[in-house]
Parts: sequence; C-alpha cells; structure tokens
Amino acid sequence: MSGYSNNRFYVALVHHPVVDKNGQTIASAVTNLDLHDIARVCRTYGVKGYYIITPLEDQRVLVNRILSHWMTGAGGTYNPKRRQALDLVRVCGSFGEMRDDLHRTYGKPPKTVATTARRNMGTLTYDRLRSMLNESTAPVVLALGTAWGLSPAFMAEADYILDPLVGSGDYNHLSVRSAVSIMLDRLLGQGNCRMR
Amino acid sequence: MSGYSNNRFYVALVHHPVVDKNGQTIASAVTNLDLHDIARVCRTYGVKGYYIITPLEDQRVLVNRILSHWMTGAGGTYNPKRRQALDLVRVCGSFGEMRDDLHRTYGKPPKTVATTARRNMGTLTYDRLRSMLNESTAPVVLALGTAWGLSPAFMAEADYILDPLVGSGDYNHLSVRSAVSIMLDRLLGQGNCRMR
Repeated sequence: MSGYSNNRFYVALVHHPVVDKNGQTIASAVTNLDLHDIARVCRTYGVKGYYIITPLEDQRVLVNRILSHWMTGAGGTYNPKRRQALDLVRVCGSFGEMRDDLHRTYGKPPKTVATTARRNMGTLTYDRLRSMLNESTAPVVLALGTAWGLSPAFMAEADYILDPLVGSGDYNHLSVRSAVSIMLDRLLGQGNCRMR
Repeated sequence: MSGYSNNRFYVALVHHPVVDKNGQTIASAVTNLDLHDIARVCRTYGVKGYYIITPLEDQRVLVNRILSHWMTGAGGTYNPKRRQALDLVRVCGSFGEMRDDLHRTYGKPPKTVATTARRNMGTLTYDRLRSMLNESTAPVVLALGTAWGLSPAFMAEADYILDPLVGSGDYNHLSVRSAVSIMLDRLLGQGNCRMR
C-alpha cells in the first residue's frame, strides 16, 4: 500500500485565474478528457477528491451533465469503473469556494501547492511534499492550471510552488493530463523510488 | 541531462490488435488527444519517435490531416511548440511495418516491450528497462494498446512485458495518455529516484 495514510490530499484543476498565450488572465473552457483522465489517475493513486474550478455557470452545468451521464446515466452502466473515478469530482465556482469547503470539512484551511512548468520558480521538492502529505493535519491541495498555466496573482498567493517537471532537455510542454499523472506517481506511486 | 544517451527508444500506440470490453480483438479509432499528449510527453523526455499503428486507411488519412495542420498549416504558426512535438509522429499500417522500418534504419530488429495494466503479467522492471535502454544496440519499442489493451496474441509475441503501474489500491484504470506519461517519467525523468 501507499506510504500516504493520512489522506487529506486533493487535486484542483483551475480554469480561472489562468493565463492565455499572451499572458492575459482568462477563464478557460473545460476539456472533457481532463475530467476523465485526471479523475482516473486520482482514483488510481488514492487522492481524496478532484475539484474542477470554473467561474462560468454554463461550464459548471456542462460538467455536471457529463458527470450525470457517467454516474447515474447510461455511461455508469456501460463502464462502472469510470463511475468510481468520476465520483471524486466536485465542481466549484472559485478556488476560494473550494478552500471554504475544505476548511469547513477539516476545521482548518487547506495548504495550497501551486504547479508550474517554469524553471527556477519551484521551492518545494517532491520529497518535501511527500513528507508534508504524511504529516499535515490540514488538507493539502495540488493546484494545476489549464491553458498557459496559473496566473501570477494565483502563484503569489499559494503556500508553496512545486518543483517543475524536467524531462531530458529544454522542452517541457506537457499537457495538464500528463503533468498531474506524473506528479501523482512521484508522490504516491508504488514501485517508484521511495519504495526501494 | 538524462542518463539515457543511447537514444534508440520509440513509443508505439497500437490501434490493432487490441481488445474491446468483451475481449474481442478489434481495430480502435484514433483519439486526437492521444496524438498531442503522447507526442508532447515523448518530446519532453527525449524519445526518438512516436508511431501510430492503425490498419484503417481512413484513420491514417485523418492522422496525416491533423499532423499537416500542426506541421505546415495554421496550427504550426499558432503554436510552434506543438509542431516540435508532433514532428516525432510516424504513421504505420501495422506493427510489423514499423518493425521493418526500424530494422532498416538500425540494421537490427527492435526489441518490443509490451505494456499491460494486468497484475502478475509483467516480467520486466523499470530498473531493468532503464539498463536496457542504456545498453541496447538494437532499437527498443514501448508498445501501448488503446481500447481495453493489447491483444493476448500481441502480448505473447512481445520480447518483454513491463511491470504494470500500481497506485494506492486495486483501482488502476489509467488512460493510455496517463500511463505512458508515468512510464516515461520513471524511465527517463530527471529528479526522479535514480538521479538521487
């Protein structure tokens, strides 16, 4: 089993405030496969919940319609494994709303760990975050940005910034689906380094 | 830089022969985000090439149209980083055709490493595959199945079967996009265990 027994660990996929290609702060559209792929990897690695953050009412309606299909509609009958994964998804209008939700649940506010692909911004190693997950009595949220990433204002307010993923060279333009998969494996995967 | 300097390592996404939900061998349809996400993670981790294997002519035409958009069309101008990733993609009608292509290039046939989510099938650890990647003078292909996975006949003919990914419990229904991302990070990522 995973070394992470104190399970107050959450993933948040942020659609606002994120930046576009030109650095402008925007609200991005929800991508269907972000719901599925990230819910599946969260379920596989034992994450407690997966928040979709979007201020756009029509996007929240869309997400809830997709979830209904898989939770109680034809999709749930066709593929019950998908239902188990999507059961982790919660939809919130803002990151603050999510924080309030977790604060109420645990009696203390969550620690926010922001992620970025930019080098020289990270201050938190995977080792330190693993220790934090085992020791923290507060919930911990790993926040990932869609589009071109979390806004500078969001980053400035986060409690920690996780070290960026680095591949074999200068190119590190991963999809958010790939990035969160790799991060959860590094933090929670069996057969990974810390288990040897 | 990566410890993997002898770069003859390829990823193949197989659309036939794979199995459906009921275990029947089928040819699956190509998913657009499989092209993008997997090309991006291959580029990030320094994989030499990414083969899309499908016997369906119309699917190969579709893939080539998508590639054209990003390589030479409007997509390439809009997002040159995407072009760098998709430049790794090659389209083949069968796994055998891909093998012949690599055999011609390197003067020896590739070693095939098949992947599966099923437990107790894997015989090759990540450590051993990392060593193989550093030492092999033959090309090595990591083969991933779409739909419900590579067919039993394909698995039986592979040179090796990689240990399945294991999360924190019994659930391990990852998307192929998540699975290949985690595998490449374990094999080639900096800041992962073997670098410490």
